[in-house]
Amino acid sequence: MSKRPRVIVIGGGFAGLWAVRGLAKAPVDVLLLDRNNHHVFQPLLYQVATAGLAAPSIAAPLRHILRDQRNVTVLQVKVDGIDTTAREVHAAGQRHHYDYLLVASGVSHAYFGHDDWQQWAPGLKTLDDAMNMRARILSAFEIAEGCTDPAEVQAQLTFVVVGAGPTGVELAGTLAEVARHTLKREFRRIDPTTARVVLVEAGPRVLPAFPEELSDSAERQLQKLGVQVMKGRAITHVDSEGVRIGDESLSARTVLWAAGVTASPLGRMLGVPLDRNGRVPVAQDLSIPGHGEVFVAGDLASLVLPAGPVPGIAPAAKQMGTYAARVITARVAGRAEPPPFRYKHSGLLATIGRMAAVADMGRLRLSGLLAWWLWLLAHAYFLIGFRNRLVVLIDWAGAYWTYNRGARIIVRDQ
Amino acid sequence: MSKRPRVIVIGGGFAGLWAVRGLAKAPVDVLLLDRNNHHVFQPLLYQVATAGLAAPSIAAPLRHILRDQRNVTVLQVKVDGIDTTAREVHAAGQRHHYDYLLVASGVSHAYFGHDDWQQWAPGLKTLDDAMNMRARILSAFEIAEGCTDPAEVQAQLTFVVVGAGPTGVELAGTLAEVARHTLKREFRRIDPTTARVVLVEAGPRVLPAFPEELSDSAERQLQKLGVQVMKGRAITHVDSEGVRIGDESLSARTVLWAAGVTASPLGRMLGVPLDRNGRVPVAQDLSIPGHGEVFVAGDLASLVLPAGPVPGIAPAAKQMGTYAARVITARVAGRAEPPPFRYKHSGLLATIGRMAAVADMGRLRLSGLLAWWLWLLAHAYFLIGFRNRLVVLIDWAGAYWTYNRGARIIVRDQ
Repeated sequence: MSKRPRVIVIGGGFAGLWAVRGLAKAPVDVLLLDRNNHHVFQPLLYQVATAGLAAPSIAAPLRHILRDQRNVTVLQVKVDGIDTTAREVHAAGQRHHYDYLLVASGVSHAYFGHDDWQQWAPGLKTLDDAMNMRARILSAFEIAEGCTDPAEVQAQLTFVVVGAGPTGVELAGTLAEVARHTLKREFRRIDPTTARVVLVEAGPRVLPAFPEELSDSAERQLQKLGVQVMKGRAITHVDSEGVRIGDESLSARTVLWAAGVTASPLGRMLGVPLDRNGRVPVAQDLSIPGHGEVFVAGDLASLVLPAGPVPGIAPAAKQMGTYAARVITARVAGRAEPPPFRYKHSGLLATIGRMAAVADMGRLRLSGLLAWWLWLLAHAYFLIGFRNRLVVLIDWAGAYWTYNRGARIIVRDQ
Repeated sequence: MSKRPRVIVIGGGFAGLWAVRGLAKAPVDVLLLDRNNHHVFQPLLYQVATAGLAAPSIAAPLRHILRDQRNVTVLQVKVDGIDTTAREVHAAGQRHHYDYLLVASGVSHAYFGHDDWQQWAPGLKTLDDAMNMRARILSAFEIAEGCTDPAEVQAQLTFVVVGAGPTGVELAGTLAEVARHTLKREFRRIDPTTARVVLVEAGPRVLPAFPEELSDSAERQLQKLGVQVMKGRAITHVDSEGVRIGDESLSARTVLWAAGVTASPLGRMLGVPLDRNGRVPVAQDLSIPGHGEVFVAGDLASLVLPAGPVPGIAPAAKQMGTYAARVITARVAGRAEPPPFRYKHSGLLATIGRMAAVADMGRLRLSGLLAWWLWLLAHAYFLIGFRNRLVVLIDWAGAYWTYNRGARIIVRDQ
């Protein structure tokens, strides 16, 4: 076989994919392992969940994205173990040797010790999650239309979104739009515009990562869309009937979870101490203690720089992936290593609904229509692949003019 | 409640949907019942199964299609029973009274008494089926890339399509194209162009509903695409390892079933004799014996006219649905009934692959490029909804120039 150093990258999200691309010209063989066959543009997952976009519009096969990079082999496998002493990754009954390893397997949703809530309150991290959410949301309206019991109709038309970070805000705002506009004329027995969308946030404000003035603006924009915002209120129970918020019970057949993340279990396989969310603390070259050849990037990595912790967002993941590729390239070439990783913050964007968004670009703070255009352009630009971008833009343009949503298909019920 | 006659339509396929539309101006209340929330453009299901189109591109919510027709209520329910004496349909614990009933619940695949084959040889009737097929096809290549055993690689890269009607021919031709062109440069360990696609047909020729010269042309076109056609050969066994064709075993991890249909079980609920495929023999006004107020239309109906049996294809289903609506409208108005149903045959089209098709338009018989253009235009035209048409055309145009397929996303494995 080849004598070139073997780099294994686990995870084809933003961090992993950008690392692989960064190694395109390095004299290494890259093996990219992912459970799924596709890279997914996570910032638009909520659009798939709310039936605005088809799943293939925000995803592309990893091997298609990387088809021209001849030093990469892509395998769709689930990683079962990592042996940092033998320098091997175990997957699908095989052992893959590495000289350098990058773990970028991300995070999934956390239920704060209440894993049984998951069946009633699905989260949103993968396309599967998004398809499930879509089926639940649309089915609630379908069931309500067939219902004769008014209390049950009301419970079916009550949607609770838990957590007011960007995903929760996007879900709540879009859900309110779907109920008030998209479905408006399509039912005969129920009035979908009476649907109640409740956004519950344990902290004191929505979008806690944003400046306070933008949080306030986001809350006003949510209310304008018809979302009921409950701040400083914790979910204390979830079951098939609904939720308990503090001591108060709320009948709701659809509960969507956007409240917390927990690190991928692969972090535990590295044999190093983890932070309290299960993330892997890394050095400033993104390597782990005691293993300079093992790197962690993206949401799974925990790194506090002098300017503060590196946030778990797509631009940070891309930067870390690119940086890890540079370190590996330098090592392989015997060149001096690059200076320690620095995170370049280009701003925070969160969309809320039609023409509603907030943008924190440092000194420039926008909300409403302007922020929404900025968000739209940024996301269309960053979507991978020309075709996807074009189809997404057509879908958006259509949705903008008609309020219709092109992907309202219940493919599989839970 | 309303005193207008109540018409229940079961099934939102071509027959049911066209019947509902035909009742738009009739002084009746229509209740449309369907297990799914969407109408699916069945002739393009194979494109979803082979990753050419996203599911939402060939489907639209029934209630969206019918939003402006105020005399229709749509319910997404599974019908559990039909009581033709009490004139009631039982669904989801409720009883729905009807004055007129149209059953248009179609057909599903038949395994000729070998229902256990279904798990190894999925059929293609619904969007769920198509998503399953897509996952299996794409996963076979993924598994092959990760395999170290050459025999297993070969079995993963062997695809058997059972039945050479239009669906089987479309699947086999498209699969060969996917292997030879779409995936060509994307693997590093396997060569997808070595994949074997075998089309097995028990009868003496492919596309038996077409004139013999077009069958011959279709077979040549299939072979040119790389499909191995086995005629006059019956499948005698299917399991996880592959198939037995006559006495011969063939290791194949992906077997696709396009060999036969069996009628929807709702036919049995009508209490009338059925034909040997379980379809419901109807009179020339599409009603069933003894119940002039109960109609059957589409693939579930069995009707032999002087010119021959009405075929189980989309145009026939639309014509039957429209006709049933006319009969009901006349009855409600107390007008003379329309003349007996006549089927207007406008031709048969079958696509095989890129620029490969056959068309039997009576005296005009086409094959190859011209037939393919005819097929493309006809299908783009008949797709429901402007947006779908546009997105589908963009996808097709993109696929035509690049051989890429935009929906190669494995969302859920079987």
